[in-house]
Amino acid sequence: MFSGFSIYAVYASLLGILFALYLASWILKQPQGNKRMIEISEAIQEGAMAYLTRQYKTIAVVGIIIAVLLFFGLGWITTLGFIIGAVFSALCGYVGMTVSVKSNLRVCEAAKKGLPAALALAFKGGSVTGLMCVSLGLLGVAGMYILFRDPTYLIGLGFGGSLISVFARLGGGIYTKSADVGADLVGKVEAGIPEDDPRNPAVIADNVGDNVGDCAGMAADLFETYAITAIGAMLLGQIFFPGNEHYVVYPLVLGAIAIIASIIGVFFVRMSQGGEIMSALYKGLFAAAIISLIGFYPATTYFFGTPQYFYAAIVGVAVTLIIVFLTDYYTSTRYKPVKTIAKASESGHATNIISGLSVGMEASVSPAIAIVAGIVLSYLIGGIYGVGIASMAMLSMTGIVVAIDSYGPITDNAGGIAEMAELPPEIRNITDPLDAVGNTTKAVTKGYAIGSAGLAAIVLFSSYTQEITRFRGEALSFNIEDPWVLAGLLIGGALPFLFSSLAMGAVGRAANEVVNEVRRQFREITGIMEGKARPEYGRCVDIVTKRAIKEMMLPGLIPVVVPILVGFLLGAKALGGMLMGVIITGLFLAVMLTAGGGAWDNAKKYIEDGNFGGKGSFAHAAAVTGDTVGDPAKDTAGPAINPMIKVVNIVALLIVSYVAMIVR
Amino acid sequence: MFSGFSIYAVYASLLGILFALYLASWILKQPQGNKRMIEISEAIQEGAMAYLTRQYKTIAVVGIIIAVLLFFGLGWITTLGFIIGAVFSALCGYVGMTVSVKSNLRVCEAAKKGLPAALALAFKGGSVTGLMCVSLGLLGVAGMYILFRDPTYLIGLGFGGSLISVFARLGGGIYTKSADVGADLVGKVEAGIPEDDPRNPAVIADNVGDNVGDCAGMAADLFETYAITAIGAMLLGQIFFPGNEHYVVYPLVLGAIAIIASIIGVFFVRMSQGGEIMSALYKGLFAAAIISLIGFYPATTYFFGTPQYFYAAIVGVAVTLIIVFLTDYYTSTRYKPVKTIAKASESGHATNIISGLSVGMEASVSPAIAIVAGIVLSYLIGGIYGVGIASMAMLSMTGIVVAIDSYGPITDNAGGIAEMAELPPEIRNITDPLDAVGNTTKAVTKGYAIGSAGLAAIVLFSSYTQEITRFRGEALSFNIEDPWVLAGLLIGGALPFLFSSLAMGAVGRAANEVVNEVRRQFREITGIMEGKARPEYGRCVDIVTKRAIKEMMLPGLIPVVVPILVGFLLGAKALGGMLMGVIITGLFLAVMLTAGGGAWDNAKKYIEDGNFGGKGSFAHAAAVTGDTVGDPAKDTAGPAINPMIKVVNIVALLIVSYVAMIVR
Repeated sequence: MFSGFSIYAVYASLLGILFALYLASWILKQPQGNKRMIEISEAIQEGAMAYLTRQYKTIAVVGIIIAVLLFFGLGWITTLGFIIGAVFSALCGYVGMTVSVKSNLRVCEAAKKGLPAALALAFKGGSVTGLMCVSLGLLGVAGMYILFRDPTYLIGLGFGGSLISVFARLGGGIYTKSADVGADLVGKVEAGIPEDDPRNPAVIADNVGDNVGDCAGMAADLFETYAITAIGAMLLGQIFFPGNEHYVVYPLVLGAIAIIASIIGVFFVRMSQGGEIMSALYKGLFAAAIISLIGFYPATTYFFGTPQYFYAAIVGVAVTLIIVFLTDYYTSTRYKPVKTIAKASESGHATNIISGLSVGMEASVSPAIAIVAGIVLSYLIGGIYGVGIASMAMLSMTGIVVAIDSYGPITDNAGGIAEMAELPPEIRNITDPLDAVGNTTKAVTKGYAIGSAGLAAIVLFSSYTQEITRFRGEALSFNIEDPWVLAGLLIGGALPFLFSSLAMGAVGRAANEVVNEVRRQFREITGIMEGKARPEYGRCVDIVTKRAIKEMMLPGLIPVVVPILVGFLLGAKALGGMLMGVIITGLFLAVMLTAGGGAWDNAKKYIEDGNFGGKGSFAHAAAVTGDTVGDPAKDTAGPAINPMIKVVNIVALLIVSYVAMIVR
Repeated sequence: MFSGFSIYAVYASLLGILFALYLASWILKQPQGNKRMIEISEAIQEGAMAYLTRQYKTIAVVGIIIAVLLFFGLGWITTLGFIIGAVFSALCGYVGMTVSVKSNLRVCEAAKKGLPAALALAFKGGSVTGLMCVSLGLLGVAGMYILFRDPTYLIGLGFGGSLISVFARLGGGIYTKSADVGADLVGKVEAGIPEDDPRNPAVIADNVGDNVGDCAGMAADLFETYAITAIGAMLLGQIFFPGNEHYVVYPLVLGAIAIIASIIGVFFVRMSQGGEIMSALYKGLFAAAIISLIGFYPATTYFFGTPQYFYAAIVGVAVTLIIVFLTDYYTSTRYKPVKTIAKASESGHATNIISGLSVGMEASVSPAIAIVAGIVLSYLIGGIYGVGIASMAMLSMTGIVVAIDSYGPITDNAGGIAEMAELPPEIRNITDPLDAVGNTTKAVTKGYAIGSAGLAAIVLFSSYTQEITRFRGEALSFNIEDPWVLAGLLIGGALPFLFSSLAMGAVGRAANEVVNEVRRQFREITGIMEGKARPEYGRCVDIVTKRAIKEMMLPGLIPVVVPILVGFLLGAKALGGMLMGVIITGLFLAVMLTAGGGAWDNAKKYIEDGNFGGKGSFAHAAAVTGDTVGDPAKDTAGPAINPMIKVVNIVALLIVSYVAMIVR
């Protein structure tokens, strides 16, 4: 009887999608500004769409090959799930990007009316993406469950989502950061022209990048994070309480309630003239969290007759809030870490970098402790299933968290359009503080996603061991003193480092090409600096498009290929160790890169606000270096680690029937 | 009867010490150069000795408190071991530093006769340190074993050694790098005067730093690495083969053979005019490795009647060589990674940093794979005891590896003296290439030390679980899916990040003070730039001395306090997880920091050799930034992670009787 509840999850998803469409149509009705703004926006749209199409086509080739392998190896339902997951994840990316490119010039126009109006519009844009992510996630998971009544089949869906998002994060991240770094290095550092100056030949590529990386890549990533967490919690319900569907359906119900809570939360984000931006956003987050919890309580007692798992859900929501606050602390211009980096910039480039690395490393510690506390508490409350429920409750906040994140790149782009359209500086003075808070909220989402990976890891690992037991007919012990397990832990631990190295290196190489191209245009196109000749924007767009597609392949395939090699060559124990190893180093490295990058970016903003000499000072030059280093860290390597970990875990679950008997 | 063999280890140690003393007396007989050189050298000696005395006094306070606690908690033998370990480790640091400050000006003088003569002298200096490290290590371990006949008592000795070396690495590292960074930032970057220019007020502090950090800190560290590995292997012998002393004494015999092989190896380091420096050093390493293996074979068959464990020893020696080659590849000016960083410097500071981070992350991967292969192979050969023998064989190379390392800072200082004494540039042209190879060999030793920690981790963890079993009367399972174990893994994983963040931040803060002081002197002392007035060197020495002592305390206490907290609050399972967690992230982070730093340093050297524009070019400025960032990474945070991991492991072993019953 309880399985019937999964249909409510479908209803909630459809409600979320409808509300997102309503918001989108409202946005489209807002004024677009003058002709020049529309022109620029169209150029960005065109570049973004061209890139995304090309990226998806390339991934489709990989996807089709994998789908064929899945079909013959694991049957048609898993393959169908894979396709649904891949398509939905791609769709989330597409929606996120489209909303962003349609909103940015309207936000620019709204900024003429002041900060609250600009925030309201940008946040509505972000809400479309956020609600689409969770709604499509829940729709896919609940829909497939209603059709096939076995969460095991959903693993394919998770795989499709993760695979798309690892490529989307990588491709989008390499695109956006090579354009950004290339534009900054020649434009800001060498030629001394401001960011987003229309004289910079890489400026369109840079703005396109924000959309394909921060919007499309992020949305695809959060879709998969959400979907995988839900699937993991459902799997645990089936494993630990076989025959009792309550436990399988309960996570879906939590998801459904949270979608409604997130819709309500959107209305709470409102800012009075002169108020603080971050507090306005916090209001929405708090509202969504509290309303979710209010809904979770009766649902839990109705399902189980006891509020036990409700307490696990509280833990999950609490971990979300704690990670949000911690990331805010480490990356916001209001607190000590960012000010320390800004201060260190006074003694030069190197001290800025040292300080930023130190802040990044420190920032990785406390979220891990919060996750440890979350795991231990939710385990004490409800065993491994309790951990699964805490993860699901944590991820149920995805809608509002993504909304808070996505408004950032929209305002960033709005600022870019203002600069390129040569609007008065007042507009930029509105979009800049919005963008600074956006840097923090972007870091927040990444910390949130990777933090949830910490909880999801134990959930997915549990599924892995249970599957091993099922296929072997007996349990296999994953003792850390077993050399095979340790070998797996170390190989797994190596993956995030290898992966990040490749991603950062790719940005370096691609940025170098952009630098050379921009230098060439400055040299060869006469009148470019006086604003008399127009740069060839298309050349830079072409370069980064080609590079991003090419460079994403190798790192993107690592999490698919390595688990297969380890599983078949070293066996099931090493593969298990690897699943844990990848999360242990991945968690810290990802937070270090994303929070450190956010802090560097905002240290620059803090200096630009007139501290330590302001724009054009020696400290500012050093801060620009830090910002540039932080770019590939926070927008390419760091955020791609989360889907990478998931792909490793899911590939292990998919090959478990083949490797379960391989024990060295 | 076989226990009698441990006396041969004592004889070999004494032989090693005698040979080291002979080399030292030979060095002292070499010409010292002109009056100015002697003056400068004396200033460096004075500063170094003053710092080391102060550092040791501070550590002594901590040491005495811990000794008292040990005495009441674990009895007098463990306390005695702790004191011996601490004193021997401090002695190694003292010897390493003294040899260095006595050799540097003599190397400077010898450089007048050419590269081979300078290398010969510098390498002899390094050999004194190397042989003292292993000889004191083996003497302490074998001596205490002969007295008390139980390797369990030796844990105290390991603790004493590790505690001293974590503080020595931190204090020395903070000292050397804050002086170095401070001197470079104002001198090289702002004032445009060369490195080691006598007009720079921080130049003496910088040169003192090389001695207290690279020499004293490194020697103390390698002493403890050697001692702990030997103790770990002996413990495994006792645990797995109770009542059979062969297995306990065998590691000591390997150590004894390797000391003799290392003495012979020293004679193989010889360079013809026009030959390659690195190949000359490799000759010594190969000779020592081959002679050791030739000695290991009959010893093994004599002990066990079968060569089984000989094969494990081959694995250990092979891992050493592989790690040496890999580090050489990633940090030497001869190969692609360093050239890539140099090339990236052409587009500026930021791309230099991105490229260096990418190289560092990549460099951490392959040594880990080598260690995994080493663990798996030696385990297949001889179980966990086989892993212990592989570790011991690996560490038996310490004497020659440290010799190859320590020659580097000696030549670095020799170059500094040449610059300060205003000797003709030919001298600098001799010391500079020696120093460049020294950057690689320094990185090699760090990679070697941390790599051995990877093997030692499984050995120490095994001892931990066996002790748990002994106290509980039953085994405890450390399954990675157990939330308490996972909690421990994550907390352990956080430690290297927290520790490195504090260490890097400390350097940033101290360097900032140096920058301000140097700027003040440039501003206030008239005639300083024209060389007419002398800078107040002592002020900078004072600043870094105070800062280093103050800043080393917090990170130094972390590995002592956190395991105690975790053990008593979260229990034995979490503590076990923590031991593995700390090695998993620590291994990668340490190699990333040390290899990345070495690569940055040599990328700068590569540019200075006339590539990409050479000295004074835009690329060079960017490379100086990279070098400066690499400084605290490779000489403060990175190398301190190895003893930090050991302290965590040993504290766990020491408190095991109290926490064994705490299981949540």
